[in-house]
Amino acid sequence: MAKLMECIPNISEGRRPEIIEAVADCVRAVPGVTLIDYSSDASHNRSVFTFLGEPERVLEAAFALARAAVEKIDLRVHEGEHPRMGAVDVIPFVPVRGMEMAECVELSKKLAKRLSDELDLPVFLYEESASAPHRKNLAAIRRGQFEGMAEKVLDEQWHPDFGGNRIHPSAGVVAVGARMPLIAFNINLDTPDVSIASRIAKIIRESSGGLKSVKALGVMLEERNIAQVSINMCDFRQTPLYRVLELVRFEAARYGVNIIGTEIIGLSPMAALIDSAAYYLQIEQFDPQKQVLENQLL
Amino acid sequence: MAKLMECIPNISEGRRPEIIEAVADCVRAVPGVTLIDYSSDASHNRSVFTFLGEPERVLEAAFALARAAVEKIDLRVHEGEHPRMGAVDVIPFVPVRGMEMAECVELSKKLAKRLSDELDLPVFLYEESASAPHRKNLAAIRRGQFEGMAEKVLDEQWHPDFGGNRIHPSAGVVAVGARMPLIAFNINLDTPDVSIASRIAKIIRESSGGLKSVKALGVMLEERNIAQVSINMCDFRQTPLYRVLELVRFEAARYGVNIIGTEIIGLSPMAALIDSAAYYLQIEQFDPQKQVLENQLL
Repeated sequence: MAKLMECIPNISEGRRPEIIEAVADCVRAVPGVTLIDYSSDASHNRSVFTFLGEPERVLEAAFALARAAVEKIDLRVHEGEHPRMGAVDVIPFVPVRGMEMAECVELSKKLAKRLSDELDLPVFLYEESASAPHRKNLAAIRRGQFEGMAEKVLDEQWHPDFGGNRIHPSAGVVAVGARMPLIAFNINLDTPDVSIASRIAKIIRESSGGLKSVKALGVMLEERNIAQVSINMCDFRQTPLYRVLELVRFEAARYGVNIIGTEIIGLSPMAALIDSAAYYLQIEQFDPQKQVLENQLL
Repeated sequence: MAKLMECIPNISEGRRPEIIEAVADCVRAVPGVTLIDYSSDASHNRSVFTFLGEPERVLEAAFALARAAVEKIDLRVHEGEHPRMGAVDVIPFVPVRGMEMAECVELSKKLAKRLSDELDLPVFLYEESASAPHRKNLAAIRRGQFEGMAEKVLDEQWHPDFGGNRIHPSAGVVAVGARMPLIAFNINLDTPDVSIASRIAKIIRESSGGLKSVKALGVMLEERNIAQVSINMCDFRQTPLYRVLELVRFEAARYGVNIIGTEIIGLSPMAALIDSAAYYLQIEQFDPQKQVLENQLL
């Protein structure tokens, strides 16, 4: 069946509807691309677009969006609460179906070159596309923001990957890269003691020695008077949903605490759910590519 | 996103490749329809086709297939081990995505009328489309086969739903109807005692008072020296996969027997797997239509 790639670019405009609409129209105008969602935050002065389609068409739509953002947004007069470094701030490509990460990385580099060649926009490659480990993390690249970027790019550690050691005068710089889909997965406990959720979060998250590609925090759900382990699954192929759930169940048992339920906030790729179904249903030698009916479509 | 319907017609020809290919080509020729699979059995002298697409396109392909079968297959000279009553023997429509059973039933009746009007082929409606309870089961309709059908249709209980109380001289009659997808789901036990699998099968199957829309048998897997509960899930919305698995687990425990693993033979709709994932992952208020990434495509 056809390959499918997702793109979730962020632009530095969240207040002027006519500009946000014009940018959305650029995506809609590309055949074979579906604009799933876009939303703006006025205090952040920032908008996020989500679209999906065949990889080369998605690249086309990402370029069209970037061109519109560069033309219409001037960072010299931009203010908002969210850190930012460019008119189009970040462009992540995410493999959804029938493609490997390596192909997404290649496409992100192809887009980066076009942005530099055709829009004169310097580009940092980040996440899986990064040219060095210290450049994987978006926050590290963006530190200093638009105002500090002209000086930062002179540092050997922070030369852009494309477009020279300079910024675009009005549009700044952009980060482009490939990454796995994020899944926001929260686990609700039958206790109002948030310290238990926090201790479990610490055990499961990668940063304190837990599961690969898992970020987690303990939070209080005041309206339900229960504690929650709030989780970002950054790579469900590295660490699947069921493994996080069962580890939380085991650790909660130490306190006599049970799992009431879980939440998936927003979207999840089909593969992450089918993978957990195959685990719990104990299906031997299951091949979703060949055995899920919908995957047989061209 | 676009509605999706599956069709799995059976024709009474499994030996002459040129006819089977010609019939397959009729399906392939319909735009918007994907022929997923077709396979023939020479001793049955019968072939099964599986195709998928937008409902009206699938209806078109089913009609084209039936026309070719009526033109090319003569039941008066047909022999094979599998019971049969028509050149095209049965045409089931299955809702896959974004459609209710009622819509599938309507489409099956529309096809039935066209088969009668344009091909002069008498039609029985069966399964969800049946006009009376005793006509739901295909085996009951087919009893007597092609050779006995001219007499059977004179019986008030067995008048065809379309096309008069007669058969097509060379193509017999056909059954057309809507049904849920079948899932072949087998559960392997860590015992060589097939009588345990048989007792569990009896407990879970609908016909002996078990779970709705479940058929089950105990069988021996000689090559692995283990017993298996072999199951047909006839409506995963009535009885989901996880419920069957957990009931088998409970009943096996009575004998100190465990589940080694399970198998899904052939295809499963995505919804059946995601439904079980949501159960085991305890996801609160999960809406696959809105929250599965791939379901957001047009």
